[in-house]
Amino acid sequence: MDEPGFTRLANCKVAIVGLGLMGGSLALALRGRCREIVGVSRSPETINFALTHGIIDREASFEASLDCDLLVLAAPVRTILAQLSQLAQSAIHNPTPLRSGDYSQQPTIVIDLGSTKTQIVSAMQSLPLRFDPIGGHPMCGKESSGITNAEATLYQGKTFVLTPLPRTSPAALVLAHELIAVIGSVPFVLPAEEHDALVAVTSHLPYLAATTLMRAAQMLDDPRLWKVAASGFRDTSRLAASDVTMMLDILLTNRAAILNALTLYIEELDLLAAMIDTGDPDELRAALEPSQAKRSELFK
Amino acid sequence: MDEPGFTRLANCKVAIVGLGLMGGSLALALRGRCREIVGVSRSPETINFALTHGIIDREASFEASLDCDLLVLAAPVRTILAQLSQLAQSAIHNPTPLRSGDYSQQPTIVIDLGSTKTQIVSAMQSLPLRFDPIGGHPMCGKESSGITNAEATLYQGKTFVLTPLPRTSPAALVLAHELIAVIGSVPFVLPAEEHDALVAVTSHLPYLAATTLMRAAQMLDDPRLWKVAASGFRDTSRLAASDVTMMLDILLTNRAAILNALTLYIEELDLLAAMIDTGDPDELRAALEPSQAKRSELFK
Repeated sequence: MDEPGFTRLANCKVAIVGLGLMGGSLALALRGRCREIVGVSRSPETINFALTHGIIDREASFEASLDCDLLVLAAPVRTILAQLSQLAQSAIHNPTPLRSGDYSQQPTIVIDLGSTKTQIVSAMQSLPLRFDPIGGHPMCGKESSGITNAEATLYQGKTFVLTPLPRTSPAALVLAHELIAVIGSVPFVLPAEEHDALVAVTSHLPYLAATTLMRAAQMLDDPRLWKVAASGFRDTSRLAASDVTMMLDILLTNRAAILNALTLYIEELDLLAAMIDTGDPDELRAALEPSQAKRSELFK
Repeated sequence: MDEPGFTRLANCKVAIVGLGLMGGSLALALRGRCREIVGVSRSPETINFALTHGIIDREASFEASLDCDLLVLAAPVRTILAQLSQLAQSAIHNPTPLRSGDYSQQPTIVIDLGSTKTQIVSAMQSLPLRFDPIGGHPMCGKESSGITNAEATLYQGKTFVLTPLPRTSPAALVLAHELIAVIGSVPFVLPAEEHDALVAVTSHLPYLAATTLMRAAQMLDDPRLWKVAASGFRDTSRLAASDVTMMLDILLTNRAAILNALTLYIEELDLLAAMIDTGDPDELRAALEPSQAKRSELFK
């Protein structure tokens, strides 16, 4: 597919802004699959680690990194929003084409890896036309963050949501799909608002359920609790160890959908509490069995 | 410690009543560490599996199994309660000593593996004196049940709670500790009611949080949810796949402590929902960070 207008990943200079778990793992997964990988990070330790471990080819400032074919914003959501403002600003102050390479007629394709999409896609919609934006959200991660935990295999087999904008070009959509194929993820195209409503239930609600479990246990302040906390507590509370800055940005940029999910969750908890209080075995069994069946079917 | 009055595990005929995940794994962990392992199960398939895989030495009926040195009740809580009633009945109808072996002067030590302890210990307290009862709860398990999932290593490194009764003899306490040492668990002696209050928070509340997460997601009835359900949803919902009969018995025999834990949990959820609604980053961060720190400290 070397038709004019379509950029192949192999020919791309890729700039990754933010070299944490997601950005670092993406760089590792893209090694040898693109022309060059440029890394941007405010942390000298991170840049040093990325360079000495061969995770990136070279470092650049945010401004200098914009001279690329594919710009990947891999930071917490509110940082991405600030970077999108900077993109708009930099374009105003520098109206010449940003890129010096072979594809200078084509706009720089911009994709982000942010966990909520409505606000990001809205900010992307007003970028100058030299940028060709598309929203992205790879559905992976782990509770340990930072480039030292990056893995080339992090994205393999995981769903990678794409939230195109009305202005997203076919070239950007095709390159995003090629990127997803190269790193071994499974593409799933969704409108940004629908993405945010779905992950409010499958990702943000689990985080709040886990954190609340920790908060309730800590509230009781009894050290014997931790002696009887076994694998069930460990797994149910795992997400409470997630990076707080990342989660804070998620909670603050998806408030309405999260509050809807929480309302539903609390209603269901109240219902189960009432059933336990009544103590009718048949009624309780009928409430528990469908969830047991569905969970067993979903994850073998 | 071969003093008179103390039974060594190596000399014991052990009867395990209930050959599911817990009973089957216990039999595997006790292979070669006691005189004989007798298995009791109502399921011919389970007995057949246990015999052909060398998990037990022989099978017996419940009544016949009582002729042993150590009787282990390894069933869901309400089944254990029914078995304790049977023990009382069988002793009334058969006032001769139950055992024919070397230790016939000594009562049969009875331990259970039930997940809640207050009702079981209360029922144990009124057993005839030929039984020497002690409550037990090994803090392990997995979401897959049944003897086909049994593992000799299931108990290794796990906390094994003992809830002695006022009538529990030193011999029973010593043998229970030897059993715990042999299977590689860590003993933790607790009053039954305190055990139940603690596990309401560390085990039963996580189960309800996981099940409610499944119920909320199922309520929305959107198949796209499962496409964006990643490892966070998988782990937070894991306990929803637990055996329903086991969990039903737990919920029905620890209602007051569970309702207390649920009330605290819902209060904390309401608090977080209000903070998300307000959207003050500093307030939210201050709420999330202590849980993040504690969870990271607890499970490395």
